[in-house]
Amino acid sequence: MRIAITGAAGMVGRKLTERLIADGTLNGAAIESLHLQDIVPFEPPQASFDITAETSDLADPGVAEALAARDADMVFHLAGVVSGEAEANFDKGYRANLDGTRFLFDAIRLREGYAPRVVYSSSIAVFGAPFPPAIGDDFQQVPLTSYGAQKQIGELILTDYPRRGFMDGVALRLPTICVRPGKPNLAASGFFSSIIREPLAGKEAVLPVSRDVVHTHASPRSAVGFLLHAAGLPSEEIGPRRAITLPGVAVSVSEQIEALRRIAGDKAVALIREQHDPAISAIVEFWPQRFEANRASRLGFTAETSFDDIIRIHIEDELGGSLQ
Amino acid sequence: MRIAITGAAGMVGRKLTERLIADGTLNGAAIESLHLQDIVPFEPPQASFDITAETSDLADPGVAEALAARDADMVFHLAGVVSGEAEANFDKGYRANLDGTRFLFDAIRLREGYAPRVVYSSSIAVFGAPFPPAIGDDFQQVPLTSYGAQKQIGELILTDYPRRGFMDGVALRLPTICVRPGKPNLAASGFFSSIIREPLAGKEAVLPVSRDVVHTHASPRSAVGFLLHAAGLPSEEIGPRRAITLPGVAVSVSEQIEALRRIAGDKAVALIREQHDPAISAIVEFWPQRFEANRASRLGFTAETSFDDIIRIHIEDELGGSLQ
Repeated sequence: MRIAITGAAGMVGRKLTERLIADGTLNGAAIESLHLQDIVPFEPPQASFDITAETSDLADPGVAEALAARDADMVFHLAGVVSGEAEANFDKGYRANLDGTRFLFDAIRLREGYAPRVVYSSSIAVFGAPFPPAIGDDFQQVPLTSYGAQKQIGELILTDYPRRGFMDGVALRLPTICVRPGKPNLAASGFFSSIIREPLAGKEAVLPVSRDVVHTHASPRSAVGFLLHAAGLPSEEIGPRRAITLPGVAVSVSEQIEALRRIAGDKAVALIREQHDPAISAIVEFWPQRFEANRASRLGFTAETSFDDIIRIHIEDELGGSLQ
Repeated sequence: MRIAITGAAGMVGRKLTERLIADGTLNGAAIESLHLQDIVPFEPPQASFDITAETSDLADPGVAEALAARDADMVFHLAGVVSGEAEANFDKGYRANLDGTRFLFDAIRLREGYAPRVVYSSSIAVFGAPFPPAIGDDFQQVPLTSYGAQKQIGELILTDYPRRGFMDGVALRLPTICVRPGKPNLAASGFFSSIIREPLAGKEAVLPVSRDVVHTHASPRSAVGFLLHAAGLPSEEIGPRRAITLPGVAVSVSEQIEALRRIAGDKAVALIREQHDPAISAIVEFWPQRFEANRASRLGFTAETSFDDIIRIHIEDELGGSLQ
């Protein structure tokens, strides 16, 4: 089993890499090699199999072709510019999320005799308001951000190419991943994590939206689980609709805060400072809240069932298992 | 009012041109100039206002920029490769339908101070099976042809750019246009027209699919009506979902044939020869059948209400008003 990961230096990419190194296998097959690609420089970890690391831009000429030429059996395509940045920087978003993705899929298409499984990280940002109370698997995808449009275009190409035999793809509409460790990134959704992560570390966090905002979350551990489960799904079980809306925990910001209070007390909650940000609110206002995700459940995808669990996983995976 | 039409030599483009020349106005404003563009050479008609014609490929460097530089107030973007051809010729379809469309929208975006109304001909091919009995306005768009994927990508860009102020767009998901005059084109839907048109002209026609196939149709006259109505819709009435599924007449092939029998008799019907074509059947099998099109109705779009009317309009507009 030869594996490639784009966007490998990102949070999910790093956690996926760690998990693959720990497992040593994927889909029951021993991992022979792992190629890690990202636009930012990064240090590849050690493993018992071959690991290569490459800093490159998938939208640059020849980069996607070189990646396809590695003949990985499994390609996790996680590279991309996040929502807030794609909204703020039009050219950067279309270049990375549309051109980079299309170049990669085209390089795979044009490589003779090569049709790997591609697991593509799409997003619930492919949906745009107004929404029904819970978004069903049949609901229209009309994004209201450039990021959502770019992700949806990636889904469309990824859906068309397997039908034509060019590759074997599956797109995952990831819910917001929470609690993200490390520094905030430019995703408009970043505050959903920082209002938990920062208070748990004794630091102040800014809440830029109303406490009534409802959103769907899954832990980084679930995100890696989604990707590995998608890697192993038989193509015929996926069928012609290659994009799957994933399950998660739908909670209001208030409910997130109450979960934090149950686990870390009033002192932690007191570190959340409300400071309205109209730009972030405008993006988040049009984001989906809840999903039925029946198809994902039938296909065996699982996530947490409470926000308390999401916080506990953060404490286990990032804070050594207990609060100071 | 300055107008540009891409794909102007196509059937709908020619009928739109005729109608604009006959009206002399659009949205209540006198037409000052009309620029016609197509990839195939064509003779522009005469009019009381300036008409220019250009044979060019929107996917060639500089062509889209030159078109945007004409500063048309209204751009009807009809150019594209039809469904059967886009399926048979991968490169041609993506080049014309994705690259050509993106280049045009980008040229408009990049032209300083320019944000025309763009009316884009999308297609019900953005929907893929399985379908509910009638497709509602909220139904997911997961095309099962390359043509449908390309049209949907065009919709996504056209939906994103107006939100960002780059242009003022509306995408029309046209039903199958029937009865198409003239020679068959390479659209997989061509037989829906030829089984009516050819017998009305005393010629044999081939029916390549089962008589049970249900599909939604509107006349060429309605197609032009849709485009003109879309040109005049206030942007705020369209709202953020810029793509509209249009109304039409949902009938089975059997019902089409019975309408033909009522209007032109058994002799006409006897000219239809059933000859199964697996390639066309495979495409049409996954096409949508019926639509609710409630939103289009609320926005004032109208089509025929019976297939008999569709045949009568063909006789009026193409056969001088009566059968020989």
